[in-house]
Amino acid sequence: MAESAATCPERLVMEHITSRWGTLVLIALLDRPHRFGELRREIGRVSEKMLAQTLRTLERDGLVHRDARPVIPPRVDYSLTGLGREAAERVRDLAHWTERRLAAVERAREAYDAASP
Amino acid sequence: MAESAATCPERLVMEHITSRWGTLVLIALLDRPHRFGELRREIGRVSEKMLAQTLRTLERDGLVHRDARPVIPPRVDYSLTGLGREAAERVRDLAHWTERRLAAVERAREAYDAASP
Repeated sequence: MAESAATCPERLVMEHITSRWGTLVLIALLDRPHRFGELRREIGRVSEKMLAQTLRTLERDGLVHRDARPVIPPRVDYSLTGLGREAAERVRDLAHWTERRLAAVERAREAYDAASP
Repeated sequence: MAESAATCPERLVMEHITSRWGTLVLIALLDRPHRFGELRREIGRVSEKMLAQTLRTLERDGLVHRDARPVIPPRVDYSLTGLGREAAERVRDLAHWTERRLAAVERAREAYDAASP
């Protein structure tokens, strides 16, 4: 598993779901479906282009479902697929872990830097 | 949480543990402590410099413990700290999920590409 994980297709999936915006999109969609503008407001600081590209990548991977309704004005909803929910739960677990343990990581860094010549 | 996760220090921790080499180092060390050369052989294709840098980053974050023994020739063992074990278990879960579900992701991509103009 080690070598293939470094070089092979599953690495790309990992990168999509743990990317900065990928992570935030998946976590937001775990709550409920969102429209594009809602996602953008909730995530903050993401450009329209980057968010659209992130959603397209996740949709292509089968993680996000895009539902475009033929109404005026057009309405597009994004939601998780079953596969996307599986990924999102794991990514949320990891993101919450980093929040919960950040203080311990920062203490470790201070100790490391203090001990380094 | 959304905005802070995009821009703040926990994002960096997430990047360290989900990076290509960070992931593989953490998963290898979940099994047992490794010497540098063992890690390098097990991970494969990683340069000495990249592996050393990855280990230094994880050590500074308090996830990996470096044990240098004053013997001849010098012997250095790397192992997970308690904090590192928590991170590694989550990262392994995610990596195994991507392996297990890769076929589903690939089918989704084929369907997406076939439907795209």
